[in-house]
This record gives sequence, C-alpha cells and structure tokens, in this order.
Amino acid sequence: MTSMGKKEGTAQVILVGDELLAGEVRDKNGYFLASSLKALGYKVTAIHVVPDNLEAIANSLKLAQRNCEVTIVSGGLGPTSDDRTAEAAAMAFSVDLELHQGWLRQLETFLKDLGMRLGDANKKQALLPRGAAILNNRKGTAPGFVMEGMDNKLLYFLPGVPSELSDMFEQEVAPDLASRAGLKVQTKIVDVFGLPEAVLYERLDGLEKAIPSISLGFLPEFPVIHVKVVARTGQGGDVRADSEKALAAIEKKLGDHICGRDMKPFATSLVNLLKERGKTLALAESCTGGRAASLVTEVPGASSVFKGCVVAYHNEAKQGLLNVPLEVLEIHGAVSAETASAMAEGVKHVLGADIGLAVTGIAGPSGGTPDKPVGLIWFSMSGPWGIDTYNKVLKGPRHWIQSLAGHVVLDRLRKRLL
Amino acid sequence: MTSMGKKEGTAQVILVGDELLAGEVRDKNGYFLASSLKALGYKVTAIHVVPDNLEAIANSLKLAQRNCEVTIVSGGLGPTSDDRTAEAAAMAFSVDLELHQGWLRQLETFLKDLGMRLGDANKKQALLPRGAAILNNRKGTAPGFVMEGMDNKLLYFLPGVPSELSDMFEQEVAPDLASRAGLKVQTKIVDVFGLPEAVLYERLDGLEKAIPSISLGFLPEFPVIHVKVVARTGQGGDVRADSEKALAAIEKKLGDHICGRDMKPFATSLVNLLKERGKTLALAESCTGGRAASLVTEVPGASSVFKGCVVAYHNEAKQGLLNVPLEVLEIHGAVSAETASAMAEGVKHVLGADIGLAVTGIAGPSGGTPDKPVGLIWFSMSGPWGIDTYNKVLKGPRHWIQSLAGHVVLDRLRKRLL
Repeated sequence: MTSMGKKEGTAQVILVGDELLAGEVRDKNGYFLASSLKALGYKVTAIHVVPDNLEAIANSLKLAQRNCEVTIVSGGLGPTSDDRTAEAAAMAFSVDLELHQGWLRQLETFLKDLGMRLGDANKKQALLPRGAAILNNRKGTAPGFVMEGMDNKLLYFLPGVPSELSDMFEQEVAPDLASRAGLKVQTKIVDVFGLPEAVLYERLDGLEKAIPSISLGFLPEFPVIHVKVVARTGQGGDVRADSEKALAAIEKKLGDHICGRDMKPFATSLVNLLKERGKTLALAESCTGGRAASLVTEVPGASSVFKGCVVAYHNEAKQGLLNVPLEVLEIHGAVSAETASAMAEGVKHVLGADIGLAVTGIAGPSGGTPDKPVGLIWFSMSGPWGIDTYNKVLKGPRHWIQSLAGHVVLDRLRKRLL
Repeated sequence: MTSMGKKEGTAQVILVGDELLAGEVRDKNGYFLASSLKALGYKVTAIHVVPDNLEAIANSLKLAQRNCEVTIVSGGLGPTSDDRTAEAAAMAFSVDLELHQGWLRQLETFLKDLGMRLGDANKKQALLPRGAAILNNRKGTAPGFVMEGMDNKLLYFLPGVPSELSDMFEQEVAPDLASRAGLKVQTKIVDVFGLPEAVLYERLDGLEKAIPSISLGFLPEFPVIHVKVVARTGQGGDVRADSEKALAAIEKKLGDHICGRDMKPFATSLVNLLKERGKTLALAESCTGGRAASLVTEVPGASSVFKGCVVAYHNEAKQGLLNVPLEVLEIHGAVSAETASAMAEGVKHVLGADIGLAVTGIAGPSGGTPDKPVGLIWFSMSGPWGIDTYNKVLKGPRHWIQSLAGHVVLDRLRKRLL
C-alpha cells in the first residue's frame, strides 16, 4: 500500500443493489463501513449506491480504484442472475472469471455440516475474477474476495447481508488491511449515555493526538452513542498497552456516562450489577408505558433479577395495583414527586423486590400545563438505601420522551449500584 | 421536461455531508428520497454521498445533470462555513451567487413570529445561485431551491435535516414536478402487517399495469411494511377516482392485513376501535416484557381505553398480581395455553378492563426444549365474547421475537374488533 500513515489513507464505499435505489431496503452497510473505516484511520471520500447493472458497477469500480487506496464493495455476490458484482469486477480488471476450486471444497464441508449439498447456485458464486483472493464467510455461502489493482490499490468485495458483511469486515478485512501495512490492531467499543454529542466530541477531542496510534469512530443510536476505539501500531509498538491507555483516558473523561461495552443491550450493565449485589428489581411505569421493562427484558437472563413491572397508566391501576393513596393522587396529581415515590415504594412491596423504580410524566403532545409542561417527568428509586425522587424536563416528540425517560430511570440505578 | 411518462424519468440523489462519510450520522434522506421518487414513477439510478467540499459537490452536480432528468440534493444549506452546496451549485452552473431579497423578507416575518430577528447567518443562507427559484421551508430557516439546467433537467436542493427535507419534498418538490409535467398527484399510505414481503409484492403485482396512473413504493420498518400509493393523471384524468380505485383494489387483495394508514403508530387503529366500541383494555406480558404496552402507549390519548399492563416476568408475579393458580404453573408450565389464558383472565379482572390480552413464551437465545423450542409463544385474548388462546413459533434473534410477539397479540384483537 502506498501509505498507511494515520488518517492518510483514503477509502470509498460502493453499495450495489436495485432494492436500495427503490427505497425497498434501508441501508445499514454504508453507515457501518464508513464508521469502521474512519475508526481504522481512513478518510472516506464517497459512498455510491449503484444498481445491479454490469456497466454501472464496473464504471464505479474503475473510478474508485483511480481515486482511493481502499474500496469496499457490498452486495451483488448472491446466486441469482441479478447478482453481477463478480462479473463487473472481472470486467473492470479486464480478467476472466474462473471457478475457485478451493472455495468450493470449503463450502462443501460447510454445507455438509448443515446436512446440505453443493448446488448449481453455489458454483455460480464460486466464479470469481482471476487473481482474486478469498475472504472467508462464516455466516453464509457467498464468498467475499479481495483484488489488488494498480499502485497496490485494494478492492474488497463483501456480501450485502448486514450480518455477513459486518462479520467479514471485522474478521477478514480489518486484519488484512493491518497485516498488509505491517500493523497490529485492537478494537474496543464503549457505549455512552447522558452526554450531548457535542459535549462528548469535545471531551474526547485531543485524544487521537495524545495517543497517535488511536483512532475514534462514533455510531449514535438514540439515545446511546457507541464510541469505537481502534489502536494500530507497527511491529515495534504495543497495541494492547496503547488500547488500554486510551480506554483509561476515556474512562477518566467520561466517568459513569459509560453505560456499557460492545453495543450490548442497554440494561446489560444494570442486570450484571444487580446479579453481583444479589438484588432484585421491580418497575412501575406510567408515561413510559413499558419501555423501561422492555429495556430490562432485552437482556438474556434478566429473569434472575427482574421481578416484573406494573404499567399503571390509569390512576385506578396506580391505586389498585400499586397502593398509591387516593389523597396523594388528588392533592399532588399523577405527575408529582409524591406519586412517583408512592409508586416506587408500592411496586417494590407488591412484587417483593429489593429495589423499586417508578416513572410518571407527561409525554405529550397534549396534556401539558404552565406548571407541568409536556416533557416533565418525575422519577423515583426506592431501595435499601432509602428513596431518591427527582425530575427532568425532556424535549422532543412523544416517542423520544418515552424512550429517553425509560433509559434515564434505569441509568440512575446503574450509577447508584456502581 | 423531456418525458414524464410513467417509469420513464430517471433521477439521482446526492447527499452532502462529512458527517455521513464519517459514519457519525445514519442517513435517513437517501432512503426516503429513493422510495418517494420511485413512488412518483422515477427510476433512481444512483445515490451519491459526497463530502462538504466545493469541487466534489460541483462535480457530482454536473455528472448527475448530464445523466438524469431529476436530481435531488440534500444538505449543505446551513449557515456555517462548512455549508457550501449553494456555492457549488453556482460553480456547476457557471453563475454568480446573489442575495435573494424575497426569501429574506419572508424569513424576517417567520422569525418575527418566533420573537427573533434576521442575523448574518440568515443572510448567508439567502445567497443563492442566479436563476434559482425558492422552495419554501415550513420547518426551518434554510431555503430550498430549484434550478433548471440543460435540456430542462431539474435540480432540487433541500436542507439535510430529515424533518425539513421530507416536508419540503412533499409540499414543494412533488407538486412542482407534477405541475411542470401537467399532472395531478395524490398520495396515500397503507400500513401492512403479517404478510411476508415476497407475498405482499406478489399480491400487488399487476396493480400498476391494471391502473396505469398508479405507482407503488415500499418502506419496510420491521415488522410493518408501509405501501405508498401514488396516483398521477394528466389534466383530463380524475386523480381522486384513480386513487380510490387503487386503494379499493389493495384493500381487496390485502384484507385485514392492512393495519393502519399514513405511518401512524402501530396501535392507532386498535385504540380507535376500542374507543368506538366503548371497550377498555388491559395487558399481561411475560416474554414480551412491556413491548405490547409500549406500542399501545405510543398512541396519544391511549389512556382513555388502556387501563395498564402487568409485566409478570417471574412466576411469583403471575401468581401474586394476576392470580394464575400455582397448580397451572406447576402442571402446564409458564409457557402454556393454560397459563396464557389464566393471565388474560387475571389481568382483565385485576385492572377492571373489558378485554385482557396475555403473552407468554420463550424469546431465547436459551431456555428452549424439544417440546417448547425458542420462539414458541402462547397468546390469549379474553373479552365479552369469551376466550381465544393460540400459539405461534416465531423466528429470529431475541429482540425480533419480542417485538413481533408484541405486535401479534395486539393485531389479533384489532382484527377481532373490526
């Protein structure tokens, strides 16, 4: 490769597929590849979505190869006659297609384990441009491949199925790029909650300069932001030490805003902390309507610490199931500190849990008053340490407020248990 | 325009933004524009994501204009120095930028209503290429604009904020395209649940041929598919009649798989039906962990018919809060017809509702047995008509099974109330 110095390499992404141009599928691969390439130190100069058309694909390959050190192509490697990426690559490189016997033998073993046999479709998929080197697919039957063009330009061809693409990128492409450049690479992901994007970027600003082997990538998924931390060193460097140094610096800068690792479900850390502390949890939700419970139950094995939840949408349910006194509801209203704490106490007791959490508020779009505007949410947490009741005014459309409030109530408990 | 015959026009989309190439933002506009252009009868031949760079934007504009009748550009119209789309358009068309006084006056009125004044940033945004015609922005301060190039090629420039872009497309671009072509346009959206995509496409196949003024676009958002139905007729045609004819045909082909209209929250039809019938609802959820309740409470005003939900994750909660008898749990297990129906009856009674729905199952990834595999879900619906208990085996990762099961249990009740 011409240059693998940090942030010097340029890259392009080509997404192949009529379904993307018809809006029938919402692309995930462009976003994933852009973020991953940035984290590997590349500057992505363009993403092109092109149809399943031989000339269109071949032209975009020729152009990308002229402009960028690395090109990643996604899609068009399937078994049907629409899938023409391998043929277009052969055309762009002016080589023939040939049957890749090594891949066919490998695929035969893979299929045998599933009780299946090689078919004609598999043979079509093993027709690759001469000179292509196989990229192994652990998740499917389409082989990926890599070709080296003029001036050591690299073109990687990956299947369009997002789970196959991301696995192949992490397992095959990233290590191959690193080894060609004589680099060792280590990737870690830190999940962040409760910091505005601008503040997060500001806090981490300067880290890439302070530890030159580190690159950062950001993948926001409301309301969490995933930060990809990639360390890359030459043979003399200690990639693990640099990665740990960067993570320590990030921990210091972000503190308990780090809510998890490796894009696991949001409540994973909370469920683990509850297990460690031997505590059980119950939830009482009003305006969030089950969103906090959904987050907890997304974690496999949550049942060992999660007793359940009462979605007390009506005041009747707050009284009948959670034993919120009628006077409290009448004097202070359903959206109040008093009701929130009575709900937390009530659900803890009713479900026999160690900790009770409650949320009640006004998700909108209507129902606000000057005293109690849309977005006003009261939270309460009742546990062995006593009761903690607080409020926030959240902004945004109804489903954002509901989702954000569900995250907030769980996150406060996570921080408490740290 | 050269030709506005159905499916004859070609279009391209250009998305401008460094943040898209760094993977820091997941694009929504490409998907929206591709789907909307297809529904208007255009063949989208490419989507390009380009950086905030004058030459890169100008080159892509020149190329797109050469190849397509319509080009839609998104982003780069903001007030900062990074926002260079207007300048690039002037460069591509070899014209000067000039202050658009009409827009400034309009903006002044808009800002006055918000208690604000024109600033320098607004003046920068009013610098548009000579010959540009304004596209009104009802949602923000960046004007959109349209330019006519060689051979009547049209280039529309829209702001990158998704809510501003989609509003401007529907309010300004689609009508402008129609009026330039001498067409009347009517757009309707039908939401579909419970049909595999392939079956849906097959059932609607032939409709565009049967009613030549109709085009269809598809936007899948798991587990619902939105079908955009666009009628376009010349001055002699009756666009409303054609649209109604198409909708009637779609209703006949899809029947009660049509779960709603206009991309409203999934449970909107259910909540409306409950209001009409004067019935109240209570939910008991185990494996779905609050997802059904979340769907119901996403609908503004659901509180008038929704009493609440018990997420009975533990057997203790099934017994204590829902009065499921211990023998039922011991003999039949938590995932069984007997437990599901006891939960539905229990929650109906406990929350004093007319209708009780229950879900209990195995969301995985572990916990399956040969008798009761991962994905086995029991559902029950108890109402004035008696009790209906049924099961399904759902496929996919844990969060898909949970989400799908939450939709299934509500959809069965919607169909029942029709």
